[in-house]
Amino acid sequence: MTPPSPTFREMLRNRLRARAQAAGLDGLLLLAPGNVAYASGWLFTINERPMGLWLPVEGEAVLMVPQLELENAEAVPGVRVAIYEEYPGPVPAQIWMVRQTGALRIGIDSLEARLLSDVQAELAHLDLTDHCLPERIVKHAQEIALVRAAARYADMVLERFLAAGADIIRAGGTELDLMADATAHARAALARDHGQAFAGTKMGITATFHSGPRAALPHGAVLPRKPLPGEPIIAGIGCSLGGYHSESGVTLVLGELSAEQRRVMQAMADANAATIDALSRRQPCEKVNEAALAPIRAAGLGHAIRHRIGHGMGVEGHEAPWLSPGDSTPAAPGMVFSCEPGVYRPEYDGWRCIETLIVTEGGVEVPSRFQSTHPFDARVIPL
Amino acid sequence: MTPPSPTFREMLRNRLRARAQAAGLDGLLLLAPGNVAYASGWLFTINERPMGLWLPVEGEAVLMVPQLELENAEAVPGVRVAIYEEYPGPVPAQIWMVRQTGALRIGIDSLEARLLSDVQAELAHLDLTDHCLPERIVKHAQEIALVRAAARYADMVLERFLAAGADIIRAGGTELDLMADATAHARAALARDHGQAFAGTKMGITATFHSGPRAALPHGAVLPRKPLPGEPIIAGIGCSLGGYHSESGVTLVLGELSAEQRRVMQAMADANAATIDALSRRQPCEKVNEAALAPIRAAGLGHAIRHRIGHGMGVEGHEAPWLSPGDSTPAAPGMVFSCEPGVYRPEYDGWRCIETLIVTEGGVEVPSRFQSTHPFDARVIPL
Repeated sequence: MTPPSPTFREMLRNRLRARAQAAGLDGLLLLAPGNVAYASGWLFTINERPMGLWLPVEGEAVLMVPQLELENAEAVPGVRVAIYEEYPGPVPAQIWMVRQTGALRIGIDSLEARLLSDVQAELAHLDLTDHCLPERIVKHAQEIALVRAAARYADMVLERFLAAGADIIRAGGTELDLMADATAHARAALARDHGQAFAGTKMGITATFHSGPRAALPHGAVLPRKPLPGEPIIAGIGCSLGGYHSESGVTLVLGELSAEQRRVMQAMADANAATIDALSRRQPCEKVNEAALAPIRAAGLGHAIRHRIGHGMGVEGHEAPWLSPGDSTPAAPGMVFSCEPGVYRPEYDGWRCIETLIVTEGGVEVPSRFQSTHPFDARVIPL
Repeated sequence: MTPPSPTFREMLRNRLRARAQAAGLDGLLLLAPGNVAYASGWLFTINERPMGLWLPVEGEAVLMVPQLELENAEAVPGVRVAIYEEYPGPVPAQIWMVRQTGALRIGIDSLEARLLSDVQAELAHLDLTDHCLPERIVKHAQEIALVRAAARYADMVLERFLAAGADIIRAGGTELDLMADATAHARAALARDHGQAFAGTKMGITATFHSGPRAALPHGAVLPRKPLPGEPIIAGIGCSLGGYHSESGVTLVLGELSAEQRRVMQAMADANAATIDALSRRQPCEKVNEAALAPIRAAGLGHAIRHRIGHGMGVEGHEAPWLSPGDSTPAAPGMVFSCEPGVYRPEYDGWRCIETLIVTEGGVEVPSRFQSTHPFDARVIPL
């Protein structure tokens, strides 16, 4: 396994050039960090200094970066580099970039409203459509291979959590200790297996562990809290490899499963099945979300829903398309989604499981394996 | 030490209300994450779902958040909560927020250009000035106390690096091992000292360690690279406590200092002194930057400058004002800056040291102590 090749990245840029041409533009100035990473292959550090990629319909792509990033940018294959001195600078970097293009009809994917009139003054035509979006949402085989590989390490965190959780909790360990142990285990494996081939790129494991009533807060802080017998513990894991993201997650129970807990777990399993079914039938994303949440509502848990069923993943951990109200994009082969039914009951408990789903020609591939290899009775940390 | 009180946060909001009124507005809709955190005290997780704070000139502030954040938002003192279902939703959340205000003359601090005309259609007057900016740049005593406390833990990473570095390197350790050991040490101290009082808030240590020729890349990845005798190793550390940031950083040398290395270190020390002098004289930020970089240029190292001397710090690790070209804000008491002279010589070596500076009525306070307590000869890891 190696990072996608410069040839692959140039192929993506050519597809974007074709879109720009079809829209009657001289080129695209990409400013959204995810789009710059997608079209350049460069996984740069995001900060206040704008980074741009100018992609003319004809001619070489130009990475436009602060001087600070000169050497990092020069290491990116297939692009020329132009630098500005610093942020904020005497002229906003975005205006400088527009001037650098020398073009009069351009598309810009993301821009602060405050800069709009100054940018328009430089151009004959400004198109604010995100022309990267329709390209990014359908992944190529090279991208899917990385998503698939990353899912393996997200699963590994969960496997370690299940294997080591009982000892850690018996020794007085907290959510933070469970998280530190399981993520360190998978990080080491990731570095061992891929550290060489992906040296200098970003690879990582992110995680949240929430137990008992705290599990009812999807975005709460992970705490030095000791899980208590009978409580569910949510582990939500993300892994990135070569810039591509996967997720896997599960809710384990400390001690024995109650009948009520099995009921919640079944509703979430039914949500997983409904998501896969709706994606297989190439439903619009917002309809997939409705179909996915229906079994949770049918189980009388509608009040405990706090979020959509999932989101796209690629060079960003959360990206379009969204399995959510307001996104009518039809599911299509090559799309990658999280599927993460959640049941949150404030002051009582919380549940979430996560799979990574890849829409294929024939249906849906599930590269995250933890849920399918661990039936409900195996999702227990013995006391 | 405790987080700033709800009363303090309400005082900040009242100052913002006064600015809105003076600008002839009905209120401010804050959408920039740093501004929402500043005016609400809520250190939320930033993702694609917009979070807003509506601050009417008269009446209660309203946090506008996705349903997912309902319970987290309800725990924020002194604000009412309004929720939207999900992202993206049938209507952009920003448009929904504007409608929720019921106001016709509002200020919005940050907005995507694509949404501008739709937002304008809802209003009689839209002001795109960031009215938070002039408030945020001057810190109050409660904020400075947190900056000062955080600096202590950034220093602690450096102290541990110096104390444990020789053993780690002798045992074959790499940049990653040095970083893991030193940051774990300071993280534990931070949790021990402040974990209870700041439970549930974000506190953290961030770090980069770069050795030898790799140190010439300010934003390069930290690698499993073993430092070699004679090489400089840059450690750049950030710490946040109660949402407020400090930095401390130094470049240590493995083995003995060469005359050339002392020369670079002296130029950087002179840059520190020039920064403090220019801030004490309340120079405009861009002039402070010029004064700070002058000793590095005078030492014949101008070609090795890659960035400005520093940036503001507060609820964001990098925020205005900027000690950089293009920022003419005069230095004033209460401003907090990083001072980080850097010398980067690609394929050869790299140097950076960092202090946190607080402009006071009488001059400049330096809460990060590592450089002042470690003269050049003490910045050596013995072989």
